[in-house]
Amino acid sequence: MRAVDVISKKRDRKELSPSEIEWFVAQAAKGLIEPYQVTAWLMSVYLNGMTTAETSALTRAMRDSGRALRFSLPSIPVDKHSTGGVGDKVSISLAPLVAACGAFNPMIAGRGLGHTGGTLDKLEAIPGFNVHLPLDAFTKLVGEIGCAIIGQTAEICPADKQFYSLRDVTGTVESLPLIVSSILSKKCAEGIGALVMDVKAGSGAFMKSDTDAIALATALVRTGQSMGLRVLAFVTDMNQPLGRTVGNALETAEAIDFLKGESESRYAELTYLLAAHMLVLSGVCTNHAEAHEAAEKAVRDGRALEKCRVMIEKQGGDPRVVDDSSVMAKASRVEPYLAKSDGFIGAMDTMRIGIAAMVLGAGREKASDVIDPAAGFVMRKAPGDPVRMGEPILDIHCNRIEKMETAARVLDEAITIAETPGPIPALVRKVIASE
Amino acid sequence: MRAVDVISKKRDRKELSPSEIEWFVAQAAKGLIEPYQVTAWLMSVYLNGMTTAETSALTRAMRDSGRALRFSLPSIPVDKHSTGGVGDKVSISLAPLVAACGAFNPMIAGRGLGHTGGTLDKLEAIPGFNVHLPLDAFTKLVGEIGCAIIGQTAEICPADKQFYSLRDVTGTVESLPLIVSSILSKKCAEGIGALVMDVKAGSGAFMKSDTDAIALATALVRTGQSMGLRVLAFVTDMNQPLGRTVGNALETAEAIDFLKGESESRYAELTYLLAAHMLVLSGVCTNHAEAHEAAEKAVRDGRALEKCRVMIEKQGGDPRVVDDSSVMAKASRVEPYLAKSDGFIGAMDTMRIGIAAMVLGAGREKASDVIDPAAGFVMRKAPGDPVRMGEPILDIHCNRIEKMETAARVLDEAITIAETPGPIPALVRKVIASE
Repeated sequence: MRAVDVISKKRDRKELSPSEIEWFVAQAAKGLIEPYQVTAWLMSVYLNGMTTAETSALTRAMRDSGRALRFSLPSIPVDKHSTGGVGDKVSISLAPLVAACGAFNPMIAGRGLGHTGGTLDKLEAIPGFNVHLPLDAFTKLVGEIGCAIIGQTAEICPADKQFYSLRDVTGTVESLPLIVSSILSKKCAEGIGALVMDVKAGSGAFMKSDTDAIALATALVRTGQSMGLRVLAFVTDMNQPLGRTVGNALETAEAIDFLKGESESRYAELTYLLAAHMLVLSGVCTNHAEAHEAAEKAVRDGRALEKCRVMIEKQGGDPRVVDDSSVMAKASRVEPYLAKSDGFIGAMDTMRIGIAAMVLGAGREKASDVIDPAAGFVMRKAPGDPVRMGEPILDIHCNRIEKMETAARVLDEAITIAETPGPIPALVRKVIASE
Repeated sequence: MRAVDVISKKRDRKELSPSEIEWFVAQAAKGLIEPYQVTAWLMSVYLNGMTTAETSALTRAMRDSGRALRFSLPSIPVDKHSTGGVGDKVSISLAPLVAACGAFNPMIAGRGLGHTGGTLDKLEAIPGFNVHLPLDAFTKLVGEIGCAIIGQTAEICPADKQFYSLRDVTGTVESLPLIVSSILSKKCAEGIGALVMDVKAGSGAFMKSDTDAIALATALVRTGQSMGLRVLAFVTDMNQPLGRTVGNALETAEAIDFLKGESESRYAELTYLLAAHMLVLSGVCTNHAEAHEAAEKAVRDGRALEKCRVMIEKQGGDPRVVDDSSVMAKASRVEPYLAKSDGFIGAMDTMRIGIAAMVLGAGREKASDVIDPAAGFVMRKAPGDPVRMGEPILDIHCNRIEKMETAARVLDEAITIAETPGPIPALVRKVIASE
């Protein structure tokens, strides 16, 4: 086989065979295909697309470029993947919740970049929490307590990292098959057999339109299914921050509050929904109603909170955080952000809210930026809520006082006040099941 | 400007501005854009094409990546470009012919690869002929005698060489804008103001179909025109070798014979046609009839032959070749290739004839192969000619006796004998003038 022939075949819109894709990825991962051949191929994939069979072969090849975990457990290991948004702290409550119900959730999570937060950054707001467990310790912990959350390691899908760094500088990031294979190869390497996906759509998501989000969700489900996973995808609303906090320590505290029974927000609604489906797909529960009830019960009787405490402790974090969020960093200054007129909270440019939080230090503009775990917002109003001039819409938590002004200006652009209440998009926009 | 933005714009089928293209090529030539970004861009150009304005900017940028010659002469410097075929020795007779008529033809020519021959290889069949004149000596010689023929130098269009080596391994060779800019950038670097192009179509050409050849010729003319050149393109037949010889010394001898007045072949017809148009485009003659007559007269009265002798001498070659072709290498063995049945010479797979010659050593399978200048064929029959079983169709000139058998087998596949004479495609299939 020659790289140029594989490139030319994709260039000519022909379907690549699994063995051609596997060979290309394996050779590239070993450095036996030049980066300038990889990028020509990536561009031809970007422009000509891939079939589900091709995307599936690509996912498998990327998974097999590194170490893939294997579990031997009484139920199917299950995970959740979210495409990322603002205020999305679901993973932190979800993993202990499903583990408390008897499921096994090995979760390899990511960091925040740009307007989006990352689960790892949120967990690191807990003093001592170690997201760098070796894979063997991670596997052991999942078997022992049912869940663990760590970061990407160099052993998992090295080809994905290599391809991503090339995609980033060649305009080939936004390609459905490349996005799908990147997501699923890493998830498959976790050793899971079931996966619930949360594809965000809206102003704070990577996919702004429902159409794009549905296309991604559909491709994820099709490919996941053809990889032998039990899969389900939800397209959910990201036109407002999820829950009442944005920022790392604030969100971790909110996640813990959920496990204590706080259940009024869309965040709680989504966590229960995803948890229930994970319990069904993993085979722990037989139907959705039973699963939902199991999840609620685990919260009610404190087992989910206790599981969270154990997970934190086992990963080196200060378990007192479960009882007292003040063990996490606190902002030196908290200032209300006030409504400039009477009316109703209108549509939010949620990406801008994420960017305002990033400006304060809650996120990163570039990968090397240092996070301030205390920075962020506590939302006091949501879209549709009535508001009076001078009334706080949110509280700004901030240590970098000199950034306050800039963040407030970004918020001015992000939040509108309308004379009449506008429509509020439903939380769940679409469910995509496997065929 | 960022490389990724230029790539993404072309990926999105938007027209790049001249400054974007110039910047990209200049940075790439300096090594400031990574090869893996160049190839992603090349693939997006391959798949999304380029407008004439873009191709023109690309041509200019590639020309300006190196040294561009400048002449100050009484008429417009003029050249001819052929896309290559089998038996095409036109350049060798054409340059001295137009120079003898008063035109100035600085010609940077190429080598043969695969089934095609190259002008440089043919000239090097002349003992001592030096195709490696420094550019200053080349420029001076053109001014002095009106013509000179040398090979590509590292100073001319380095970006083209760089891009080509990347295209070769990424499936991006056969792209009209990339082919056009590669051809024209090198021609423009010669310092010419007028260019006649001979785009071959048929079984021995890169473009097999008239449609493809016309598309290339049209793109060459449009782009050449937008570069400020006086241009004209002919689509000519390459369904049989051009003239009666294939192979380096044999073709050079035939080119000299033409200058001595041999005028029966399609090769002579094409040479006069191209010469006449070069004389008109360069401003040496005012119309085609006058130009054609001028060219015929230069052959009749021996001035063209004399010009050839001077060019050979000035370039270090043995000028006696003009009177005696036996100063060039001769094959140790000459064997007729015989007709296997009675009938008429049918369609020729001319590429296969070129490959048969390559097998004997007249061409290269790979760039590093060593040429045998004596090897080749002298055609005794052309398509449409009646032939009797056992009668010679051509003579095989060969030193590598062990290859004779293979070459003959390739010829068996290349040459057919039909019961009735088939149609003979006209030499000139289409003329494409500037608008």
